[in-house]
Amino acid sequence: MTDPRFFRRSDPIPLGDIAKEIDGELEDSDAATLLIHDIAELATAGPGEISVFNDARYRAAFADNRASAVVTHRDLARHAPKGICLVFAAQPRLAYAQIGHLFYPPPALSPGIDHSAQIHPTATIGSHSRVDCGAVLGRGVEIGRRCHIAAHVVLGEGVMLGDDCRIGANTTISHALLGARVEVATSVSIGGQGFGFVPGPKGLVRMLQLGRVIIEDDVEIGANCAIDRGATGDTVIGAGTVLDNLVQIGHNVRLGRHCVLCGQVGIAGSTIVGDGVMIGGQAAISDHVKIGSGARIAGNSGVMRDVEPGQAVGGSPAVALRQWHRQTATLSRLSGRHPKKDD
Amino acid sequence: MTDPRFFRRSDPIPLGDIAKEIDGELEDSDAATLLIHDIAELATAGPGEISVFNDARYRAAFADNRASAVVTHRDLARHAPKGICLVFAAQPRLAYAQIGHLFYPPPALSPGIDHSAQIHPTATIGSHSRVDCGAVLGRGVEIGRRCHIAAHVVLGEGVMLGDDCRIGANTTISHALLGARVEVATSVSIGGQGFGFVPGPKGLVRMLQLGRVIIEDDVEIGANCAIDRGATGDTVIGAGTVLDNLVQIGHNVRLGRHCVLCGQVGIAGSTIVGDGVMIGGQAAISDHVKIGSGARIAGNSGVMRDVEPGQAVGGSPAVALRQWHRQTATLSRLSGRHPKKDD
Amino acid sequence: MTDPRFFRRSDPIPLGDIAKEIDGELEDSDAATLLIHDIAELATAGPGEISVFNDARYRAAFADNRASAVVTHRDLARHAPKGICLVFAAQPRLAYAQIGHLFYPPPALSPGIDHSAQIHPTATIGSHSRVDCGAVLGRGVEIGRRCHIAAHVVLGEGVMLGDDCRIGANTTISHALLGARVEVATSVSIGGQGFGFVPGPKGLVRMLQLGRVIIEDDVEIGANCAIDRGATGDTVIGAGTVLDNLVQIGHNVRLGRHCVLCGQVGIAGSTIVGDGVMIGGQAAISDHVKIGSGARIAGNSGVMRDVEPGQAVGGSPAVALRQWHRQTATLSRLSGRHPKKDD
Repeated sequence: MTDPRFFRRSDPIPLGDIAKEIDGELEDSDAATLLIHDIAELATAGPGEISVFNDARYRAAFADNRASAVVTHRDLARHAPKGICLVFAAQPRLAYAQIGHLFYPPPALSPGIDHSAQIHPTATIGSHSRVDCGAVLGRGVEIGRRCHIAAHVVLGEGVMLGDDCRIGANTTISHALLGARVEVATSVSIGGQGFGFVPGPKGLVRMLQLGRVIIEDDVEIGANCAIDRGATGDTVIGAGTVLDNLVQIGHNVRLGRHCVLCGQVGIAGSTIVGDGVMIGGQAAISDHVKIGSGARIAGNSGVMRDVEPGQAVGGSPAVALRQWHRQTATLSRLSGRHPKKDD
Repeated sequence: MTDPRFFRRSDPIPLGDIAKEIDGELEDSDAATLLIHDIAELATAGPGEISVFNDARYRAAFADNRASAVVTHRDLARHAPKGICLVFAAQPRLAYAQIGHLFYPPPALSPGIDHSAQIHPTATIGSHSRVDCGAVLGRGVEIGRRCHIAAHVVLGEGVMLGDDCRIGANTTISHALLGARVEVATSVSIGGQGFGFVPGPKGLVRMLQLGRVIIEDDVEIGANCAIDRGATGDTVIGAGTVLDNLVQIGHNVRLGRHCVLCGQVGIAGSTIVGDGVMIGGQAAISDHVKIGSGARIAGNSGVMRDVEPGQAVGGSPAVALRQWHRQTATLSRLSGRHPKKDD
Repeated sequence: MTDPRFFRRSDPIPLGDIAKEIDGELEDSDAATLLIHDIAELATAGPGEISVFNDARYRAAFADNRASAVVTHRDLARHAPKGICLVFAAQPRLAYAQIGHLFYPPPALSPGIDHSAQIHPTATIGSHSRVDCGAVLGRGVEIGRRCHIAAHVVLGEGVMLGDDCRIGANTTISHALLGARVEVATSVSIGGQGFGFVPGPKGLVRMLQLGRVIIEDDVEIGANCAIDRGATGDTVIGAGTVLDNLVQIGHNVRLGRHCVLCGQVGIAGSTIVGDGVMIGGQAAISDHVKIGSGARIAGNSGVMRDVEPGQAVGGSPAVALRQWHRQTATLSRLSGRHPKKDD
């Protein structure tokens, strides 16, 4: 049950239509006309709602649930209580995510440019886009179609956005080219000058940062992130990659496609990250290292050397995950344990 | 001696009035009419000022101090120099904090709505509130009385604030309900979508984030923090809890009451934190763990498992504090020490 | 080759003029009239461009390069390919940084105050300064000459800026005095109240934060940093010190001159840092410690005690760098290694 102050639900949807949308199959085809009103997790779902059951460990909750319909895998059907309508899907969790988008489609964007926005005469804005209060679009900015530029966003000279981008309030972007369907949250800083200095006779002399930020299609960037532009050449965020909040991306970092960077991750300059890499929260990666595709980096670890494709690492300095677990166990053993509870 | 460009001091206050306000007791009741002009730390206090002495380790500074009056505990009075007026309080440091508020009351809020603020016709603003330049209040926003919404704050549709809230400049809030006396600093992001994805055939599919952020009374949130809304259900910050700067709170995290989170702490999704928990700077806490009430988590540690109520933990992965100290000592011993100074 | 959407290059410059500007010497004085069009790194440089060769390890790239001219050290000249014009400099990397500024001078600031900026009648703005859309300058603010205050910057009452400062969009500054040539990036929070509380009968009581932030000349502050004002007395950032993005500076911290703080560093309250200190990314430093001048702190480390001048430390809790390396090696040895590749 979502709060109507914040979310608008679509009208009820027949279960058959839902099944069709997710390439699922109804256990009982007579249930195709059943009207579903909302989605809900198993523990809270009630009549008229559809939920998901994906993991046999939670079969007790499945047995007790009060939803009208549940998306699940065929192999899990035997745990179902009586009288519930089942929809079979190959990947129930994915199907459930898709059903969510049916009930809560993105709010229609009412197009237009607020009178207080400051648009340079040379800037161009695609059709059906919306520019909110106080937004600033510099010389030569190009915005695609159906974009939403929220209040007080500042887009510096020459910035380009593809179609269907959404830029959150109070965010600043410069020296950057964004693809389509890029979503940037609030108070994000993209395109700032990288951190490069040379010691000189009177102090540090800045190395000019003459590169760009390239953000490919379908990227999501969380709140309060900072992504610096390249020194020479570009900083790149690959297609479909997602960044959580407060992530730091140094100059000339190249992130591959479909990577997942959790909150407060920091990646120092010129590090190259492959495709499909998972990086846990608050992990730090040194400059000039290579992280192979499919690598997994544990939260809170400190990576100071290259990581092989597919390798899992943890600790600080990070080592192979099993080695890290052994180190932790060894240290614990050598330090002894108090017979009574510590502290 | 505060800088008058930034702080306005009230008129001098008789020492007797000060004592009354803090439930303190004058050592010498004749001193009740002594006019006090300001507060100051022991090392810098001079005539006309009141200071605090709370810790016998600093008795030398107490003996040398030049303040006209000092708040202290009765048991510490014997360290006092001659000719100084003492005010006894059960908790001198608390009393000193309270005296600060007497001399530096919050500046009077001059109410009104700036002409450049953009207020949706359905938004309501309580009496004596102030809305600054460029602030944006969306559809159905409700603001309590005596609130201050600073410049360029963006409050999304349906956001509600209790009485006496202060929202700092360039902060963005959506999908959130705030209690009374909540103070949010600058460039904070509250209510963004949590970080949840399911792998799909063409890349990651976003799990819709259909919950809210609930911020109870008397919460303080530091600069550049990010607090995500729940996926289903709410992210909750309990009453009286304080967050320092650059803190990350994932979706569905529940913080209890009167917790203290120091700078750059990160808490991953669905973690539950009890009451009165202290979390040191840059500590990281994994998702789906439980931190018991009264627990203390050392700075820079990485908590990956549940922490018992009252337990103190440190290290990464975090263990009981004593165990961590033993591990550190063991590792140091096994690695040997250089006879001459390292490095 | 820089992107002309984002960068404006100056007209070509004769090599002789370049040599003069950097106090360099032409190997062949006949080359003084050679026109140079741009700078580029060795790997990508082509005809008409000047590059740098500074490190014998890259001599293969030097031998193959296609630049028209290269800045290098006299001792490295023997690695040069034929037909290239050499410019000798004592510090080639520094010289190269200086040449960058010749080709890419800061864009001329077109002075003026945007009509939508909100300037208090008592605020003063030096000549040739520029104030962008939606900027707010409070009572008594003083801005020097040739400053750039970007869009939606909020400068609180009494804030002072020296000459040639640049403040990035969506940044908020209060309770602060800035020197000359200070550069602050976007979405930065400066002057917020420090994090100090005393437990009281009904919860935490805030200690008033009655100090300031003092930022000396030539400081650079990265995106989304947070710098709190002092509790009593000041938080100080020494001249020529540079902060990367997302750095947290607690109240009453004092940073010396020419320090380098990499991304996501956090320094807790009242810690004193000497001159020329280098702090690696995501390092955390406890409150009330002293870091001596010239100290180097490894990335991702956790410093809980004083660090001697010139000392290098790493790890968490941080120890002398060599000791840390020994500890890491010891732990690895004691934990054994798998004969086949881990994970």
